[in-house]
Amino acid sequence: MDFHLLKNVVVPAQTRIVMLVLDGLGGLPGPNGKTELETAHTPHLDALAARSELGLLDPVAPGIAPGSGPGHLGIFGYAPLQYEIGRGVLEALGIDFELTAKDVAARGNFASVDAAGLLTDRRAGRISTETNRELVQLLRTIKIPGVEIFVETVKEHRFVFVMRGAGLGDALTETDPQRIGVPPLPVKALDAKSRKAARVANQFVAQARQLLADKHPANMILLRGFAKHPAIPSYAEVFGLRAAAIAVYPMYRGIAKLLGMQTLPVDGETFADELTTLEKYWNDFDFFYLHVKKTDSAGEDGDFARKVQVIEQVDAQMPRLLALKPDVIVVTADHSTPSLLKSHSWHPVPVLLHSPFVRADGIAEFGERACARGSLGRMRAQELMPMVLANAQRLTKFGA
Amino acid sequence: MDFHLLKNVVVPAQTRIVMLVLDGLGGLPGPNGKTELETAHTPHLDALAARSELGLLDPVAPGIAPGSGPGHLGIFGYAPLQYEIGRGVLEALGIDFELTAKDVAARGNFASVDAAGLLTDRRAGRISTETNRELVQLLRTIKIPGVEIFVETVKEHRFVFVMRGAGLGDALTETDPQRIGVPPLPVKALDAKSRKAARVANQFVAQARQLLADKHPANMILLRGFAKHPAIPSYAEVFGLRAAAIAVYPMYRGIAKLLGMQTLPVDGETFADELTTLEKYWNDFDFFYLHVKKTDSAGEDGDFARKVQVIEQVDAQMPRLLALKPDVIVVTADHSTPSLLKSHSWHPVPVLLHSPFVRADGIAEFGERACARGSLGRMRAQELMPMVLANAQRLTKFGA
Repeated sequence: MDFHLLKNVVVPAQTRIVMLVLDGLGGLPGPNGKTELETAHTPHLDALAARSELGLLDPVAPGIAPGSGPGHLGIFGYAPLQYEIGRGVLEALGIDFELTAKDVAARGNFASVDAAGLLTDRRAGRISTETNRELVQLLRTIKIPGVEIFVETVKEHRFVFVMRGAGLGDALTETDPQRIGVPPLPVKALDAKSRKAARVANQFVAQARQLLADKHPANMILLRGFAKHPAIPSYAEVFGLRAAAIAVYPMYRGIAKLLGMQTLPVDGETFADELTTLEKYWNDFDFFYLHVKKTDSAGEDGDFARKVQVIEQVDAQMPRLLALKPDVIVVTADHSTPSLLKSHSWHPVPVLLHSPFVRADGIAEFGERACARGSLGRMRAQELMPMVLANAQRLTKFGA
Repeated sequence: MDFHLLKNVVVPAQTRIVMLVLDGLGGLPGPNGKTELETAHTPHLDALAARSELGLLDPVAPGIAPGSGPGHLGIFGYAPLQYEIGRGVLEALGIDFELTAKDVAARGNFASVDAAGLLTDRRAGRISTETNRELVQLLRTIKIPGVEIFVETVKEHRFVFVMRGAGLGDALTETDPQRIGVPPLPVKALDAKSRKAARVANQFVAQARQLLADKHPANMILLRGFAKHPAIPSYAEVFGLRAAAIAVYPMYRGIAKLLGMQTLPVDGETFADELTTLEKYWNDFDFFYLHVKKTDSAGEDGDFARKVQVIEQVDAQMPRLLALKPDVIVVTADHSTPSLLKSHSWHPVPVLLHSPFVRADGIAEFGERACARGSLGRMRAQELMPMVLANAQRLTKFGA
């Protein structure tokens, strides 16, 4: 689906859409022969499934395990291979840093090096966020002629590094060698346009190392994911939607902001807290993206039982979501994170699409194998949004 | 599927293909929980389904509700986004008007305006076809230097307007504002090549208004869908088929002609009459497109029961079609028109593919949910024709 076609058929409507994304929801069978989602007791999701169209989505393409960026872009309706979001950009947006077109952002880690300058810990023993803040104050004293430098605490050992200035490219190699026992790497420019940025970044690292010399375990920094703000058309522009994001974790708010969604404040960290925000802002937006992180975290930890539990906690809260009577409800994931693999995987993700205008499959179960039998079939994730818009009666006929 | 590949594997054969298109067949569940097609008593289609491969087709793309043009292009094997057919061209072809490369055609409506020139009825109270013919005689007296003008009655308030001449582009805005209480709009050229055509069209409208001044309710005209004949490769060229169209309604004969199909005369308006034509010309063609309009009309009227009835009438006649022993039978639709929505919709259409060489799904029901379980899966409509040709043993192996 190209956006040109979509823009030509989008029409205004009063309908409201909720897209609930359970991060890393897709799983693999455990010893009981069932996946985490199939194991979980989910009476509300199952009842909703019976009144929905079900299917399986490939977030990027069959066989491809997506990162959070491309995974979300796919279910948000964008071609993940066309729009790349660098890690640095995601991190910066996630802490509400306002990136400009002149910025190159990178994800920074405090790290430990020995006397010979070899890495001993790529995360500096996961120092506290408080210590991080103190060290960031120190790094902010670094001045480099011709550019503005920003350093912002994220959490624990993580910070955001931003260079702002004319003529900064982002075709840069990373300093993190991804293993210990070796020194950090220098930043190299991969094209002529990025030479100035490479020089600035290397100067910054050199000065940071001097300033942090006596701050072990945080006596070094690593920079990766150098990236500029990508030009991505917004939800308003492409889909005609006033979109809001309800997400607790910075990266997901960051992705949403990139697409022009307004990020709403959540008082707390649970799905119940997110629903309170949803209820509060219900009349102010057309599209709500709700993000649940803990399904993915449990999968990454290889904790099958905890992933089941998180899914059941979400299910228990579904009546609050349903009580708002959204015109369209989507429940899906940005990628699979099977406990068996302890990582993002390539497996397609289950999807449930409900509206008054679906040909319900009548399959009273929300699970991977149930979804494989659904009428949506197996689709690219980016094909979902046009169907969501159609079900929200926000698309008019194409052609005579 | 690109045509380049297809052209290289097409081989001649003696087989015959029937593609039965029930316009707007796809539906949505009514109060009984079943769609129109699922509700209809269709013993012959059900029996054929049991011996067929079933699936769901997206005529253009998931979520997109197609007009009749793109809907038909898809099931006919063409990329609907690549070949656009303007409304004016469809209307002209539908009345057997022979368009040339120098023509720009538009759909015309007789309309009513008040003394201030504001539209009061965009269809002139649906005047009789007879009155239309008289008024068209009047409009034919309009002469504009440098171009030839053609005006042809279609039906009731509708006519075709054609400008023929050198240097006429079709990037033109419409005069129909799509609502009443406002004046008709002037035609504007959207590119330099279309300026002459815009001038001619505006002159024609101005003169038409004077000529029709005392002909209320038909005292004005509206023009829309300005278009030139698109360059579309023919069925003979792409598929190696001698193709015939059996359709009662002008627009569908028009689409078929655009693809080089020969349109056959039908004595009457029913499906039974179309079958009489099919029987008569059975030995003269390789491919027959049969079109049934009334499924769509009933859907557009929101008449669930009538749509069920039309489907049952078609089913009752199926033995005549089967008696001809086509090598390949396809039953499908150009788009869905659920009675619930009273309009074309985005829902994928059911498809049934029968030949001696199918892996029959053994599902003895032709319905949307039954097709969702079929082995064709969910496909783009344009992927159907290569499978139809293969089943007709009209494609040879690709590659060594």
